[in-house]
Amino acid sequence: MKTEATKFSAEDYFATQTPPPTLEEDVEKVREFVKIQAKEGRNIVLVTSGGTTVPLELNVVRFLDNFSAGTRGATSAEYFLKAGYAVIFMHRQFSLQPFSRHYSHSTNPFLDFLDIESQDSASDPTPRISVTPEKRADLLTVLTSYKRVHSLGLLHTLTFVTVNDYLWLLRAVSQELSVLKRRSMFYLAAAVSDFFLPRQKMSEHKIQSGKGSLHIEMDQVPKILKPLVDEWTHGGFIVSFKLETDQNLLLPKARQAIERYGHQVVIGNDLHRRKFEVVFVSKKAASQDLTSSSQEDPFEEQWLRIPQSVVDQTTPGFPIKEIEEDIVQELIKRHTLWVKQG
Amino acid sequence: MKTEATKFSAEDYFATQTPPPTLEEDVEKVREFVKIQAKEGRNIVLVTSGGTTVPLELNVVRFLDNFSAGTRGATSAEYFLKAGYAVIFMHRQFSLQPFSRHYSHSTNPFLDFLDIESQDSASDPTPRISVTPEKRADLLTVLTSYKRVHSLGLLHTLTFVTVNDYLWLLRAVSQELSVLKRRSMFYLAAAVSDFFLPRQKMSEHKIQSGKGSLHIEMDQVPKILKPLVDEWTHGGFIVSFKLETDQNLLLPKARQAIERYGHQVVIGNDLHRRKFEVVFVSKKAASQDLTSSSQEDPFEEQWLRIPQSVVDQTTPGFPIKEIEEDIVQELIKRHTLWVKQG
Repeated sequence: MKTEATKFSAEDYFATQTPPPTLEEDVEKVREFVKIQAKEGRNIVLVTSGGTTVPLELNVVRFLDNFSAGTRGATSAEYFLKAGYAVIFMHRQFSLQPFSRHYSHSTNPFLDFLDIESQDSASDPTPRISVTPEKRADLLTVLTSYKRVHSLGLLHTLTFVTVNDYLWLLRAVSQELSVLKRRSMFYLAAAVSDFFLPRQKMSEHKIQSGKGSLHIEMDQVPKILKPLVDEWTHGGFIVSFKLETDQNLLLPKARQAIERYGHQVVIGNDLHRRKFEVVFVSKKAASQDLTSSSQEDPFEEQWLRIPQSVVDQTTPGFPIKEIEEDIVQELIKRHTLWVKQG
Repeated sequence: MKTEATKFSAEDYFATQTPPPTLEEDVEKVREFVKIQAKEGRNIVLVTSGGTTVPLELNVVRFLDNFSAGTRGATSAEYFLKAGYAVIFMHRQFSLQPFSRHYSHSTNPFLDFLDIESQDSASDPTPRISVTPEKRADLLTVLTSYKRVHSLGLLHTLTFVTVNDYLWLLRAVSQELSVLKRRSMFYLAAAVSDFFLPRQKMSEHKIQSGKGSLHIEMDQVPKILKPLVDEWTHGGFIVSFKLETDQNLLLPKARQAIERYGHQVVIGNDLHRRKFEVVFVSKKAASQDLTSSSQEDPFEEQWLRIPQSVVDQTTPGFPIKEIEEDIVQELIKRHTLWVKQG
């Protein structure tokens, strides 16, 4: 594997690639949602979640993907809803979703806790099915929040599959959110591919094997944080994520992103420690003391940690404590300040 | 994208790549399962399902993947169980599974059909949760089969993620199944990558972007059907799948596979027609009339079709008719004959 220079600007990207077929319809629904929430005076957070794919063929069989079950996004969305935010949950198809995430088909399958009861009466020929007593308490908590959020219409869900879907949706949704100005937040937890294969270079049919090795050459996905900050939003509070596997790269890469795009927070996390440790990197507020400011480190870091043991010793789907609770709490504190300062 | 010649034999592959850490433990459980089923006189089918990944990094963030939700495998496993087979369901982590497949978190979320009841009595402080009346009948069918299969121990589930996990597991499981001789069936519905990146060529950490385009060069996965037929199994009935996006390639590729590997059936399916049309390709039984045999087409084809409208007009999770029902019925007919002829 080697890398060479070729670059698409965001403008080039949208000028040459094709929007997903459902884009207009999706945006229409988002507009309606934003209107209702704005009228109710609620803040809105856009949570992006899950990985994006890069199809290698127009009739897709093979694709490049990014590791992400969508846990961070789905969990955080729940805590934002709990704190009174309206949430646009824009996630990879089949990645985890708020509430249902507690019942994965593999670790906590819901069919395991349903009991078939003996028949009630002759008038009702189908036996009743109910939740087994030992699972009731946990499920009741989840189900009560789920029903509340749905009846109040606080959650709007959008799905994407490819990195192309993601880019078009992100641009359109952030433009819709711009009416909220500082009262919108962007929580960009999706694991977005850095590379893509332009439509123009894709093979139409399934790439045939049998002729030996496969060579793929991909172009770089444009850095869309730049236009998001400068053009698409008007004052939205923007939080991006940096996932690294090399601990030594975490802070330098996070600082570089803040420097380059000028947004509010980068949350850095290491692949193997992400469930119990993250770091918030942001620009320091302008120093009062002008004489010393040129020497000073312009960044500040805040580590959030929960005990690793809490993450390891837990019932599937129901941890004692989730680090997303603290992440969301800290972000809401900062967002509230951001709104006041605006 | 271009292709060049480099090849791994199956032997080279297993000699140079590393087995998944849980392999021995997994095989131990399969051995136990096979022993019990053999004692009960049941046939066993190994169903493989879902796509395989090809990690690009040792600390995996990015990977190449194959399109597959695992519908074919999960659905077929249910019909095999219904017909009295014991099933080893070897599937990609998070792909669809028999029974729970009817309740996808996106199309038919189970939280939507649970009702919180008013409290029964003071002695039971947690309200009961029960399935909403209009969903009861469908769920009852699924739940009854699920409970039966689990109480009789007819289903054993194994998971894989990477193509490497898949290859090691397939070899080990087929060796365990060889004690059943002709009474085992292999239903290889997983979408297995044709290419992989040998451990020796992987980058340790996340590939950094920022330097331009990405070049990946992959080697060909060895054709493991050959050793599966010739060495690992002893008379198992082997069914493989060919998925193509170009209709014109379907029959030639299927015939080529039968010719090359000498197994029993290739099921050919087109990406866009696979839910209502498949073709069984196999070798004709040796002709009685020896004089004409050299001129004759050595292959026979059998198309299975259900009306496309049945697939399109359906309740999520509960189609009126699934083509897998017919596929499994036809295969069991052929397998029964195969056992008799042995």
